[in-house]
This record gives sequence, C-alpha cells and structure tokens, in this order.
Amino acid sequence: MIQKHDFVYGIQAIKETVSAGKTIEKVLIKKDLNNEALRELQHLLRNSNIQIQYVPQEKLNSITRKNHQGAIAFISAIDYANADFLIPKIFEDGETPLLIMLDGVTDVRNFGSICRTAECAGAHGIIVARKGSVLINSDAMKTSAGALNYLPVIRADSLLETIDTLRNSGFQIIAATEKGNKDYFTADFTAPTLIIMGAEDIGISDDILKISDELVKIPIKGNVESLNVSNASSIIIYEAIRQRLVTHSHQ
Amino acid sequence: MIQKHDFVYGIQAIKETVSAGKTIEKVLIKKDLNNEALRELQHLLRNSNIQIQYVPQEKLNSITRKNHQGAIAFISAIDYANADFLIPKIFEDGETPLLIMLDGVTDVRNFGSICRTAECAGAHGIIVARKGSVLINSDAMKTSAGALNYLPVIRADSLLETIDTLRNSGFQIIAATEKGNKDYFTADFTAPTLIIMGAEDIGISDDILKISDELVKIPIKGNVESLNVSNASSIIIYEAIRQRLVTHSHQ
Repeated sequence: MIQKHDFVYGIQAIKETVSAGKTIEKVLIKKDLNNEALRELQHLLRNSNIQIQYVPQEKLNSITRKNHQGAIAFISAIDYANADFLIPKIFEDGETPLLIMLDGVTDVRNFGSICRTAECAGAHGIIVARKGSVLINSDAMKTSAGALNYLPVIRADSLLETIDTLRNSGFQIIAATEKGNKDYFTADFTAPTLIIMGAEDIGISDDILKISDELVKIPIKGNVESLNVSNASSIIIYEAIRQRLVTHSHQ
Repeated sequence: MIQKHDFVYGIQAIKETVSAGKTIEKVLIKKDLNNEALRELQHLLRNSNIQIQYVPQEKLNSITRKNHQGAIAFISAIDYANADFLIPKIFEDGETPLLIMLDGVTDVRNFGSICRTAECAGAHGIIVARKGSVLINSDAMKTSAGALNYLPVIRADSLLETIDTLRNSGFQIIAATEKGNKDYFTADFTAPTLIIMGAEDIGISDDILKISDELVKIPIKGNVESLNVSNASSIIIYEAIRQRLVTHSHQ
C-alpha cells in the first residue's frame, strides 16, 4: 500500500521537495509528455542525481487521482548514509564491520524485516542499488519495527564498484546463493564481512557472484526449495554474530 | 484477507461440511441467536470437537454480506496430523526429532513463513493450540510457499499436556524467550528437541516457560528490542540443523 505521505505530486511541489533537500527515491514522469515546466523539472532531477522513470498515464493515476501534472515523486522514509564516512567510522570505533548488501530485493516487507534483524544483530549497515531496489517507504519503516531509524542504509550507484571498494578496505565478500559450494556455517565470518543476499526470484546476479570470495548455501532438507529471503538473511546474519561471540569468549 | 474458499456460511452448508469430514478451524456463531436449526448445528459441532466462538452480528457481516444465518465456518487449508502416529514414526525412521511449538502466534504470514523455514530445514512438524491460534487458511498456505502441503501440523488441546507427553517420549524442551538466561547457540540441539516460540506481542506464557528445560535468548545488540517471530524461529531452527550437521560430520 502506498501511503499519502510516501509521495508528492505536481511539478512545483516536486521542485520544492528537491530544493528542501528531502531524500527522493525516484520520480515517475508520464511517457511522451513534453512541456517547459516538465523539462525544467527533469533538468533539476538530473542535476540532483535523482532517478527518473517514464511510465504510462495509468500508472500515475493508480497512485493518485489528483492533478499530478504527469509527475509523482516518492519520498524516502529515511536519509541515506554515505559509505565514505560510514566504513572508516566502523573501523575507528574498533568494531569488526558487518554489512549486508541486497541485490534486487524488491518486496518492502522483506526489506523491512531484514533491516529489523540486521539492526538487532548489531550489523553496521545495509547496501542497496540506487536503481531497481525497494522503495523505502512507511511500510518498510513499519515492518522494520523502527530499525530504519537506526540502521544506516547506503544507496550505491553500482553494487559491483561498491564491492571493489569494500574489498580494498579489507572486507571479505560472502554471497548467499543456492549455487553455493559450501554450507554457510563453514565460512568464517569473524573478519570484516560483506554478506550479499539476492532477489526473491532470481537470487544474486551472475556478475556479482563471479567477484565474490565465497558462495555459501543454506542446506535444504525439505520439499520446498528455498527459504524466504528475509529468513535466509536472519540465518546468515546470526551465524556471523554467533561466530563472533564464540570467538570473542574464547580469547 | 479472508478468501472465499476459506469459509462456508449457512447452517445447512456447515452441517454438510462437517459430515463430509472436512477439517474446520472453528465456527463463528451469532451471539444470543437461538433457534432449532442452530441448536442442532451446535450439538453436531460439540460432538465433533469443533471450536465454537460466539460473536456479534457485525463480525459475521464483515466476513460475508450473504445470508449466513448467523453461522460461518472456517475451513482449514490442511489436514492436521496426529501426534500419536507422528512421534513414534520419526524415531522408527531413525531420525532425531525436531518439533516446533508455537504458543499464541496469530499472524498468518508469520505462521506460514515459519512453516516454510521448518519444512526447508527438515523439521518434523509444527504444534499449535486448538484454541487461540492462527487460522490455517489460503494466505498461510501461500506464505508457506506450499510447505503446509508437506509439513505435519499438530493441533493440541493442551500445549502443557503435549509438552509432558513429548518429555516422556525423550524430548528436551527448549523455549526461546527474551527472558532466557543463555544464548541460544550454547544449548545442545542434537538430542530429540521441542523448540517453543511465543506470540508476537507477549512471547511464551509463564506456565509453559516454567516447565521448559532451557530458556534461551537470541542476543540483541541494537536499539530495536526484539526480532520478528518468524526470523527468530529461522535463527533457532537452523542453529539446531547446524549443530546436527556439524556433529554428524565429526562422527
């Protein structure tokens, strides 16, 4: 359900929202519409690095029946974090970083639920792609049980580049995939770690799997072939926490 | 969302459904309504050990606007399993039993999602109370990703008595609770085990906690105080699987 406070409609209203510095997830603009006001808006959005998606009239009308003038902006329920500040801070705080990257998770409730578990576990942040990811709206906030107020979320222009950056910062990259060649609990999560979880339907994209250090799977013994991505995330995140707590108590 | 095929309305239709041997979750009957046909239905339901819940007219009308004659029956999406047959069979198959008891979980999606994880993990069944538990309807089936077609679900008249019976059959009883005095991964799940998970809001009832062998908690490091019950279940169920696989591979 898209709630009223999750979007702003109308060209002037959207321009003001951008100028006010609010975080915008993306702006839907009516296909083949062309006028001076809209051109100005598009110019502003591009300069502000805000994603534009061109959609048919019906899509816009399904969101609001009011006079949207061919433009609707989705407002984010959160302010995104900046990786350039976040990563060094985790190390400076003397903690062993644990980040979760979601490649293509689009279900708002799954996303919220993963954020709740990650925050409870003390993970340091979630990374999503700028394009094609879940809209972080009031439903996501609600399913996260407020975790999105605390847990840093990073929006990456390129997941592949972000993985490279993290590797250069000393992270190991562990991808959870049904194609994994070892059980998740045989991986060592005690080093700085990026855990990658994939989309509900197709999992993690091949180009990301290729550059990951380890491909781990959750053993399935039943007839149902796969876990829900939120539950799979919980299992792997808490295995990392378990290993870190056990290792710590043995020192 | 209650779907059309999740319920049957009207006195005659409900009587026929009972006679046909379909599994009925419970029957809602209009408060203070009294007539011969209804008395006969109530008699049949009591003889068949089917739960009756007396509700105001508005409750019935909110489910269907059709002529329900003051009675609506919820049909189960599954046939329940019988503990007297299931438990011995697990031992006979040479497996180490792992059962999950849900004390008061009422959210259909959480229930379905827990069943999905339990089935994937190879757990042997789910136990719920006859009264006050989730309705196992088409939404539950959908969220379970079909797991409810495979995973035995036992409906217990008394959870306390079922716990006693399981203990006498050689089970240890591990309750997951925020009041736990040890981390879940320090418990040994390699013996026959009943894991108990509690309601979304109030957790496991005190009388069940009292007779459990171990109270385990999932460590929380963040600001959000608790995990979603479905995610918490995944973490504990898969810790049991992890321990059993690791122990097995060391033998």
